[in-house]
Amino acid sequence: MHMANAFDPESAPEVPARTAELLTRREAVLSASYRLFYREPVEVVRAEGAWLYDSAGRPHLDMYNNVPAIGHSHPAVTEAVTRQLGRLNTHTRYLTEGILDYSEALLETFPAALDQVTYACSGSEAVDLAVRMARFATGREGIIISAHAYHGTTALAASLSPSLGVNNSVAEAVATVDMRPGMDVETLAAKVRSAAVDLEARGHGVAAVIFDSIFSSDGVLPDPVGGLAAAADVARAFGGCVIADEVQPGFGRTGTMWGFSRHGVEPDLVVLGKPMGNGMPISAVVSRREISDAFGASVRYFNTFGGSPVCIAAAQGVLDVITASLLPRHAEQLGQVLADGLAVRAGHTALLQDVRAAGLFVGVDTPGADTAAAIVNGLRERRVLISASGPGADVLKIRPPLVFDEAEAEVFFAALDDTLEDLEPS
Amino acid sequence: MHMANAFDPESAPEVPARTAELLTRREAVLSASYRLFYREPVEVVRAEGAWLYDSAGRPHLDMYNNVPAIGHSHPAVTEAVTRQLGRLNTHTRYLTEGILDYSEALLETFPAALDQVTYACSGSEAVDLAVRMARFATGREGIIISAHAYHGTTALAASLSPSLGVNNSVAEAVATVDMRPGMDVETLAAKVRSAAVDLEARGHGVAAVIFDSIFSSDGVLPDPVGGLAAAADVARAFGGCVIADEVQPGFGRTGTMWGFSRHGVEPDLVVLGKPMGNGMPISAVVSRREISDAFGASVRYFNTFGGSPVCIAAAQGVLDVITASLLPRHAEQLGQVLADGLAVRAGHTALLQDVRAAGLFVGVDTPGADTAAAIVNGLRERRVLISASGPGADVLKIRPPLVFDEAEAEVFFAALDDTLEDLEPS
Repeated sequence: MHMANAFDPESAPEVPARTAELLTRREAVLSASYRLFYREPVEVVRAEGAWLYDSAGRPHLDMYNNVPAIGHSHPAVTEAVTRQLGRLNTHTRYLTEGILDYSEALLETFPAALDQVTYACSGSEAVDLAVRMARFATGREGIIISAHAYHGTTALAASLSPSLGVNNSVAEAVATVDMRPGMDVETLAAKVRSAAVDLEARGHGVAAVIFDSIFSSDGVLPDPVGGLAAAADVARAFGGCVIADEVQPGFGRTGTMWGFSRHGVEPDLVVLGKPMGNGMPISAVVSRREISDAFGASVRYFNTFGGSPVCIAAAQGVLDVITASLLPRHAEQLGQVLADGLAVRAGHTALLQDVRAAGLFVGVDTPGADTAAAIVNGLRERRVLISASGPGADVLKIRPPLVFDEAEAEVFFAALDDTLEDLEPS
Repeated sequence: MHMANAFDPESAPEVPARTAELLTRREAVLSASYRLFYREPVEVVRAEGAWLYDSAGRPHLDMYNNVPAIGHSHPAVTEAVTRQLGRLNTHTRYLTEGILDYSEALLETFPAALDQVTYACSGSEAVDLAVRMARFATGREGIIISAHAYHGTTALAASLSPSLGVNNSVAEAVATVDMRPGMDVETLAAKVRSAAVDLEARGHGVAAVIFDSIFSSDGVLPDPVGGLAAAADVARAFGGCVIADEVQPGFGRTGTMWGFSRHGVEPDLVVLGKPMGNGMPISAVVSRREISDAFGASVRYFNTFGGSPVCIAAAQGVLDVITASLLPRHAEQLGQVLADGLAVRAGHTALLQDVRAAGLFVGVDTPGADTAAAIVNGLRERRVLISASGPGADVLKIRPPLVFDEAEAEVFFAALDDTLEDLEPS
C-alpha cells in the first residue's frame, strides 16, 4: 500500500538540480525502506519555532511535526543537553539524580495509581515493552487495536500496525475495531466486546486493548469522548489491561496533558514518545505498580540509552517549558482557531468536509485521496507543510508544534484559500 | 536467573546515607525491571576520558563501558550536538545533507557489497529490523543464535536472547549453538549445521544466523578466528542470511573496525549500536542492497528519531575521532597490554584462569560466580569498574573506553593485585 503523501520518484516532476543531487546520493546509500514527503521533497537546513528553512533560506510553516512540541531548536533543550553532555552521559545501572527528579515531576502529571516509569528511546520500543508487560501480567496474548492503527516499527509494534500496509503482517493474536467518524460510545464498546469475544474464541484471551486516544492513523478521530473509558471497561471485564498510546496525543497536544484524560479513563499502562525530548530520543512506559512489578520481578529490562542523563535533561527542559507556558491550554485555544477557520471554509467548498479537532491535532475530510494529495502539495508549493492520513489517505492531518500562534494560523489560512481557489472547478 | 553483578537490595551491606536516599527515591518511581550494578551501587555525577566521578568527587576508572568509546564527555560530540541542536533536528522524510555525508563515510568502512544503511535509535531496534529484513528476504523464520546470546530488548530481540534468563521466553523458531572456549572452526560449523537441520525439521527453515563476533554474553570468546566464516557458509547453504551483531565489537573495539573482518566473513546484514554516537542514541543496519531492497520495496520503515540530524552529527564526530586517532590500532595495542598483564597474574593465582582478548574486549575465567563477584566488587571498592559475564557469571568482563591508556592499565593492575591479595587463601 502506498503511503499517504509519499514522494514517488516514478511520477516526480522536474526537480531543482540541488534536489536531484540529494535524491541521487540518498538512493545510493539509504535503504529502500525510506520514504520522503511531498510530490517535490523539501530540503531543510534550519528551523526555529514553527518554521523550517530550506537551502535557499525560504521559510516553510511547519504544521505537521509533533516532535518539536515546544518549537524547533528551542534553547531550553539545547542548553540542557549541552550542559549534560559536557558533564556525564551514562546509563541506569549507576545511580544518577536527574532521572529521579524528572521521573518524580513526570509522574506528578499522572493519576496517583500510575506511579512507575521505565525509559526507552523510541515510541516503538515503549509500545513493545508495554505490550510485553501486559502479556506477562495477564498471562494472555490477545491484543485489541483499531483497524487502521499505527503503534510503531519494532516487529511487535509493527504487528499491531495495520496502517503500515498489506505487506506488513499483523499478529495472529490481534483483533481489530473499525473506527468511524461519528461513532457513539455504545457502538465502540460493542465493537471492543466483539473483538474480545473473538480473541477468546481463538484461544488468545485478552491481554490488552491499546488505543491512541486521537486515532491519528484511523483518520484523526477525537470522538466519541468517553469512548476509551467504555472500551476499557470491556477490556477489563475480559481480564485485559488498558494501554494508552500517548505518543501522538501526549504532552498537551490535544488540550490536556494526556489524551486519556479527555476520555475520562485511567489506563494501566501509558506509552510516551515523540515530543518528550523535543527531538532527543526518549520514550517511556508509565505503569501501575502491580503490572510492572509482575514483569520486572521476573524479567529485567535494560535499554542502554533509555533514560540516559542527556535524554533526561532534554525531557526535563521540555516538561518545564510545557508547564511554565501552559502549552496544553494554548494548544486548546489555537486548535479552536484552526478548527473554526477550517469549518468556515468547509461551509464554502466541497473540497473540505468534516473538520475534527482536539487541541492542535486537526483532521479534515476531503472527497478522496487525490484531493487530499492536491491540497497537501498545493500547500507545500506555498511553503506550508501538512500531510494526509486515514484508511483512504483522504484526511488532511494538521499538527503544528504547540507554540504555533494566531499570526501563523493566518499564514496557513491564506495559503489554504489560495490552494483551494486553484483547485476549485471554475 | 540472577543477573551477573546485579545489586541485590536483600543482601546489601550498610550503604552511605546519600546512596540509601537515592535507592529509596529510585524504588518509588523506577519500575521493577531496573537493575543496578555492584554490591554497593555507584552514584556518578561527572565523567571524562576513562574516568567516572562520584558525588564525593572521587575518581573511578571505567573499564566496563563500551558506549563512550572515544572517552566520556568528549568535546567533539558535545560541540557537534550543540551546533546541530541549535540549527535543525528533524527526520528522514525531509532531505538533509548530514545523513548523506555520514552514510557515505560509514559505508566506506565496509566491504563494497554492504552499501545500504537504515538508521534506528538502539541496538535492539536495529537487531529487530535486521531480523525482519532477513525473514522477509528469505521467506523463512528460523534464526540460529548462540546458546547464551544477548541481542536486545524488543520482544523480537529478547526472544533471541537466552542470556536474559528463564523468565524471558526464547522464540520457537530459534535453534542455539553452544559456544565453548577453545572450540575449533570445524566443531562450530558442525553445530551450526545441526541447528540448521533442526530448524528445517521443525518447518521453520533458516532465515539467518546472527552472531556477536566476540560472543560477549557467552563469556567473551574471540576464538575460533574464522569460525564465523564457516558458520556463514553453512547458513548460506541452507538459504539463510548472515547477520553480524557489531553492537559490542564494532567501531574498533576488537582491534579492527568491524569484528566480522577478524573472522574473514562478509555478512549480509550488520547491526551497529552502542558506541556509534558515544552515548547519543543512534544505531543502524548496514545491508546488501538485494536484501534491504526486497524488504524496503514492500515494507516501509520509519523511525522518528532514527538518523535525526543531531544523532547523525554525534555519529559523525565519533567516526572522525576513531579514524583520526587510529583507535582500532590503539585498542589492539592496549588490549595486548591488558591481556599480557592478566596472563602473568593468571600464572600466579588460581583466582584467574583463561585470559581471552580481542583488542579492548577482554574476558578472564575465574573458578566460579562467587569468585568473579568478589573480584568485581573488590575492584569496585578500589574504584575500578569492571563486570562479570558468561553462562556461569564466572567470567570477568573488561571493556574500557577505547581511549584507555597504559597509565590507566597500571592503575587497574595495582587495584587488581590488591584485590587478589585480599581474596587469596593465606
